Amino acid sequence: MSADSRAPRPGDGPFTERTPRVVAARRLTRRAGRERAERFLAEGVQAVREALAWADAGHGRVHELFVTQAAAARNPELVDRAVHAGVPVNEVTEKAAAGLSETVSPQGVVASCDPLDVPLADALAGTPRLVAVLVGVADPGNAGTVTRVADAAGADAVLFAGDTVDPHNGKCVRASTGSVFHLPLARSREIDEVLAACRAAGLRLVGADGYAEADLDTAALRGDLAEPTAWVFGSEAHGLPDAVLAELDTALRVPIYGGAESLNLATAAAVCLYATARAQRA
Amino acid sequence: MSADSRAPRPGDGPFTERTPRVVAARRLTRRAGRERAERFLAEGVQAVREALAWADAGHGRVHELFVTQAAAARNPELVDRAVHAGVPVNEVTEKAAAGLSETVSPQGVVASCDPLDVPLADALAGTPRLVAVLVGVADPGNAGTVTRVADAAGADAVLFAGDTVDPHNGKCVRASTGSVFHLPLARSREIDEVLAACRAAGLRLVGADGYAEADLDTAALRGDLAEPTAWVFGSEAHGLPDAVLAELDTALRVPIYGGAESLNLATAAAVCLYATARAQRA
Repeated sequence: MSADSRAPRPGDGPFTERTPRVVAARRLTRRAGRERAERFLAEGVQAVREALAWADAGHGRVHELFVTQAAAARNPELVDRAVHAGVPVNEVTEKAAAGLSETVSPQGVVASCDPLDVPLADALAGTPRLVAVLVGVADPGNAGTVTRVADAAGADAVLFAGDTVDPHNGKCVRASTGSVFHLPLARSREIDEVLAACRAAGLRLVGADGYAEADLDTAALRGDLAEPTAWVFGSEAHGLPDAVLAELDTALRVPIYGGAESLNLATAAAVCLYATARAQRA
Repeated sequence: MSADSRAPRPGDGPFTERTPRVVAARRLTRRAGRERAERFLAEGVQAVREALAWADAGHGRVHELFVTQAAAARNPELVDRAVHAGVPVNEVTEKAAAGLSETVSPQGVVASCDPLDVPLADALAGTPRLVAVLVGVADPGNAGTVTRVADAAGADAVLFAGDTVDPHNGKCVRASTGSVFHLPLARSREIDEVLAACRAAGLRLVGADGYAEADLDTAALRGDLAEPTAWVFGSEAHGLPDAVLAELDTALRVPIYGGAESLNLATAAAVCLYATARAQRA
């Protein structure tokens, strides 16, 4: 029996894990599949709600919604909203929903969406004041959490540079708790291109580096933090490569007042981004 | 064959997962086992190094070290240090080490230690200026990360109140990256007792609450943040219960300048604790 012969017709009941549309959507749980189809999956009630708002605002399309009967019963307003927006809503079995999920406890609702990223020039349009740049950040949860922090601190964009994880990775989308839909994201393998674009947008390039001589408190006293700033964050394991640090205007460390060796990426980013946000508003 | 008949004698080769000392140590991976034995496990090279330094400083005892042959070969200085400190060093098989580990990739080195927590009055001795209080924090990774942030921000103590996770949980110890050994930890089921002890120590009780009217920036402008402060953090899911908020001197929210609904616990704690540390040093 070919896969196509199992394609659902109206009244066929919910899509299963073998229904071609579900099989196609499942490929989006992997980076290669996302890049081929130019779509990604937003999973869970909050992410789907944010995706629909993002589409409403004209940033991209939500192509279809997959929802279990139980999830539809729990979230009628979400299904209504999708229907009103003209998004096809497909009922799926629990097993099919689990196959589209990257979580241990799937919520039974997943949307297939246009990619989030925009060209660098678009992400940096206008006169940005605060931007976060991720260089070589490999952990999708960390990348998502930093995106959430950047959004909370009022950043104008988040730029995924070098071999940083794909922002459409399910774990990144989930850790961002919707923030990937709130502010422009751009990505480029070429770190130099990202740094040059930031500089052209009038941003001071500041690396977060645990080994830097100057610290945030000193910079705050000097008034440097109030400048339009692109904060550049490196990987959890290795920090920023020397070749990248050499390209920046300066590097600052978060002062360590106690016995800890360092902060993790997300907490360091929170302290840095909020220090700038506060200085720019003072 | 009884378990005792398998007890190792010199020259018997490495301890296996059935060796009674390993069986006993394995019970420490669970809270009930830790509480019965009044010991816990510090796992990994960094944690064991910090445990030995903590014991050197007279804060408690490291009772024994379990190490695989491969890990001993990779970390000869760690084994030497344990031997010099009079800590029994037991070679264990890879399988025995894996049974003592809560990680996917065990490092093959685990120490059995005295409990970390001290009486509340001891943790708050002297004139503390900055303390973190965790109320009902259920996720051990979050509790460990907040302990790391508190250590980095120069806090004088971390207090685990109410039904907050056990600080000796393996995931908490690991997420703290050694910080659980750096500053006094105290725990009490009675939240009121913890708050009263903080107040008696001259600390202002400030809750971190996303719904608070006042925010950190306003408090910074008023100069309130420079006061000796106990920051009180609630659970990831529910925040601080109203009954606890009612007992505090004030509550503050981290200002959200963008579209995010909130910050996660660790990043919010980073912003709060560093704001106070900065204000107290200004």
